[in-house]
Amino acid sequence: MTAEKRRAPAGAAVLRGEITSAIRRALMQELAAVGYGRLSIEAVARRAGVSKTAIYRRWNSKLDLVLDVVSAVASRKLPMLDTGTLDGDVRLLLLVVSGALGHPVASQIIPDLLAEAARNPQIAGTLQSALKDYQDRIGKIVIGRAVERGELPSGADPRTAADLIVGPIYWRMAIARLPLDPAELDRMARAAVAALRVACAVPEDELA
Amino acid sequence: MTAEKRRAPAGAAVLRGEITSAIRRALMQELAAVGYGRLSIEAVARRAGVSKTAIYRRWNSKLDLVLDVVSAVASRKLPMLDTGTLDGDVRLLLLVVSGALGHPVASQIIPDLLAEAARNPQIAGTLQSALKDYQDRIGKIVIGRAVERGELPSGADPRTAADLIVGPIYWRMAIARLPLDPAELDRMARAAVAALRVACAVPEDELA
Repeated sequence: MTAEKRRAPAGAAVLRGEITSAIRRALMQELAAVGYGRLSIEAVARRAGVSKTAIYRRWNSKLDLVLDVVSAVASRKLPMLDTGTLDGDVRLLLLVVSGALGHPVASQIIPDLLAEAARNPQIAGTLQSALKDYQDRIGKIVIGRAVERGELPSGADPRTAADLIVGPIYWRMAIARLPLDPAELDRMARAAVAALRVACAVPEDELA
Repeated sequence: MTAEKRRAPAGAAVLRGEITSAIRRALMQELAAVGYGRLSIEAVARRAGVSKTAIYRRWNSKLDLVLDVVSAVASRKLPMLDTGTLDGDVRLLLLVVSGALGHPVASQIIPDLLAEAARNPQIAGTLQSALKDYQDRIGKIVIGRAVERGELPSGADPRTAADLIVGPIYWRMAIARLPLDPAELDRMARAAVAALRVACAVPEDELA
């Protein structure tokens, strides 16, 4: 009763939102199970418990649906990384990334989409702009605040942050697929901070 | 004439070797063009200019052929990285890796095989052992020699080398797919050396 009362004002719109979410969830599960190449709208509809029409009312094609879901996931807010120190922020970011990469659905979907991106310019474009956005936000949050605190020089280039912080953990977990225990995560965080300090140092010839 | 004379002693074996090489090359090109899922032995035979029988005489299946080629590529020797300093060795390794990642065939095949690995345990196993071998060799060459020179402490863990050296450049070129100019490659090398120094430092509680 309470739930229905709460729902009442938004009415059908809420219901549509729930179907959309169910379709998105089903798409992620299908992508993980069979990959983009073998994915069918019919299987997504079956898994979501909706009609194919319900899907085609929202998206024109399988590609449309996948691009939309990728954008939606990519634009999720990053947790507020503000531990008060660069070391703490980098360690927290590595924890967040290791959680995401360790997720079984993500660990199957990400490589699949990257492989499709090598052949499909639309998927490549969407992934690249999502990644660029993600890199920019990491740079702004982690590097920007470290510069404010005086932990990094003001000339620090935010673009290097993702390479140096996310690169090693992505390689370890998603490419080499080796485990990373908490002590190693700590060590990786300290190494990333050292790398950032060197990469963000203003070149000597610009100090003249 | 000279070529035939040179070839004579090995006879038919040499010819077979050439066909094998042609099939391997054709497989790489097909993999890059259509991906593992859509790859057919027929198309590989057509591209190599050989019969399907010539392929099935050598490999039992498409999977067999792909696993063999992956192993063959992965076991290629790393160039002797011995510039005399850790900085030099890391920079040279980054140059080699950037060359490999920038190769159009590699940049399509690698993500495709990683995606298949998430679903096919045999591909995953072959890739993982090839990568492990590669990581071990990098570790032994780069870390081992730096320890001998006194540039890194003797407790240095060779396994971290690939994460910290290859991770950032792989992220930059293969995931974010952004260019890397020579000045940035230099900066990435200096950052990797700083990261290695921190990651390889013997923990304080072990110095007691």
